[in-house]
Amino acid sequence: MDQDKDVTIYDLARVLNISVATISRALKDDPVVSKKTKKKILDLAEEMGYRSNHFARNLRNRRTHMIGVIIPRVNSYFMSTVIAGIEKVTNEAGYNLIISQSSESVAKEIQCVRTMFNNRVDGLLVSLAYDTTDTSHFDLFQRKSIPFLFFDRVAEDNRWANVLIDNRKASYEVTSHLIAQGCRRIVHVTANSKSNVYSDRILGYKQALADHHLPFAEENIIRNTLSQEAGGDAAAFIRQMDPLPDGVFVANDNCAVGCLLALKRSGLRIPEDIAIAGFNNDPVSTVVEPNLTTVNYPGYEMGVVAARNLIHHLNGTSGIEVTNTILLKAELIVRASTQRG
Amino acid sequence: MDQDKDVTIYDLARVLNISVATISRALKDDPVVSKKTKKKILDLAEEMGYRSNHFARNLRNRRTHMIGVIIPRVNSYFMSTVIAGIEKVTNEAGYNLIISQSSESVAKEIQCVRTMFNNRVDGLLVSLAYDTTDTSHFDLFQRKSIPFLFFDRVAEDNRWANVLIDNRKASYEVTSHLIAQGCRRIVHVTANSKSNVYSDRILGYKQALADHHLPFAEENIIRNTLSQEAGGDAAAFIRQMDPLPDGVFVANDNCAVGCLLALKRSGLRIPEDIAIAGFNNDPVSTVVEPNLTTVNYPGYEMGVVAARNLIHHLNGTSGIEVTNTILLKAELIVRASTQRG
Repeated sequence: MDQDKDVTIYDLARVLNISVATISRALKDDPVVSKKTKKKILDLAEEMGYRSNHFARNLRNRRTHMIGVIIPRVNSYFMSTVIAGIEKVTNEAGYNLIISQSSESVAKEIQCVRTMFNNRVDGLLVSLAYDTTDTSHFDLFQRKSIPFLFFDRVAEDNRWANVLIDNRKASYEVTSHLIAQGCRRIVHVTANSKSNVYSDRILGYKQALADHHLPFAEENIIRNTLSQEAGGDAAAFIRQMDPLPDGVFVANDNCAVGCLLALKRSGLRIPEDIAIAGFNNDPVSTVVEPNLTTVNYPGYEMGVVAARNLIHHLNGTSGIEVTNTILLKAELIVRASTQRG
Repeated sequence: MDQDKDVTIYDLARVLNISVATISRALKDDPVVSKKTKKKILDLAEEMGYRSNHFARNLRNRRTHMIGVIIPRVNSYFMSTVIAGIEKVTNEAGYNLIISQSSESVAKEIQCVRTMFNNRVDGLLVSLAYDTTDTSHFDLFQRKSIPFLFFDRVAEDNRWANVLIDNRKASYEVTSHLIAQGCRRIVHVTANSKSNVYSDRILGYKQALADHHLPFAEENIIRNTLSQEAGGDAAAFIRQMDPLPDGVFVANDNCAVGCLLALKRSGLRIPEDIAIAGFNNDPVSTVVEPNLTTVNYPGYEMGVVAARNLIHHLNGTSGIEVTNTILLKAELIVRASTQRG
């Protein structure tokens, strides 16, 4: 299929050997057409990337000046800074943003992709849901040569352009820092997710243990939703571990803060009894006492870089295809919650 | 103009006494048409609510199953909980959400409204930018009978349906509580905004002072961006006031936390020297020490109520026109930052 040509109802009619009038009626959900035929037509329409507004072909070379953003949720400081970065760039370039959230569900993410497609966005920026492993729902955009790229939570298969940090390296640094502070039994609290963000952090944690000749134990990995409340629950779990861990590395600051507060309330001294580190450098990391050691995750810069690459591509000044992965710097920020010296 | 009929290029041609071909070319931004003529056509097109996709009339009675949400920013805990509430309801009703942020700018908000209109959302939920006072950009939706309602930051003129809390009452309760704890010189930190949210809180604060025979002084109102950093700056300002205030009521928790931490660092005891209260009940209010007295702002419920009203209207089970204002409960939560007893 020629990717620069829009699929028309004539194409659908030819493939199915059904009259154009019937195709047209089916797409308008006319009760005259049987359910079975309708299904056949709609399935093919989807497969071939037919746009729900079939007048779209008339608007083909017209830009909508809309950029779509699909994210898991808008509820984190990190994500709001990414969006601020995207907004800055797209706004200056004369584009409007429309944002849609997958609520960490693959099914919802597929819906979001279709909504964005039917709204004819000029380009798409995506951070994947927790358990998206198959990314074939983006083929729709690929087939139409509508540019898109992933940021933070990126596609496993690495076929597309990605903007992210070196999660493995950052996690390695946090874990090595805890070891340097004398921690020997380090628990890692992470998301129950297959996403690169979390799997890479586990790899970094393991690598740091190995490089310092410390044993890795599966039971030292606690998986939860990474909310502040989940941090409290993790603390209760940690409290009854025997021997008591002496270090906790949590994959985000919210959960680390919940964990820190609960461990403090249970009578432990932070960092003397247990050192705690988080990830993201959310403002809450400087509110909690002691202040939280964390990794500065450059959300705003990530948004700027992702949007800039997309816009450059739209303006024809650079191709997304040639870019594969852009890594941004993320550095360890040592604060009182781990400084035992 | 009949509000159920879409404006066509023929209507534009008739009104302007210009050929349909010229109108069509102007709308496609064809260089053949002079700038002056184009401007005339585009201005009228806007005034008459012509949709940028003029094929839209063919799709007239077709729902897009999209609900648009326009908010100032996605960067607050409060707003993310509102969106979660909206999402729950719209998702269950089979609608997709598209979100767009005004970044606190009226100009951007007007753009967002047009984007939503051109995307043919079935309905719209809006929280206004800081300085939106004129809401005529929503007339576009009104004229087409596309339902919309405001939440939290609502329209001044009260022509539309609103979902909000009684900001005046909540603020009255916070201020009265501070007075009951012995505070006599209470500073109010608020946004530099004309929005109902902030003006109503100022009214409640003033009313409480008056009812307790305490003088109101304009210099006790500090206006800033309500960010955590701005809270630190407010603290520096408060520190040099003479006599030193003994109570601070901040219009959100983020700013209250920044203020509390900076006052603490400057050597003051909270609440003995200065009692501090915030607003929203963000999670950070239970992280800061001492924990922050605040108002529980039911964001999730607000999202649910706003979305439910819109969906009921779309399903024809209730009219938005008959509803004017829905007030949700918001109650004072007293914590250590104000308990001097």
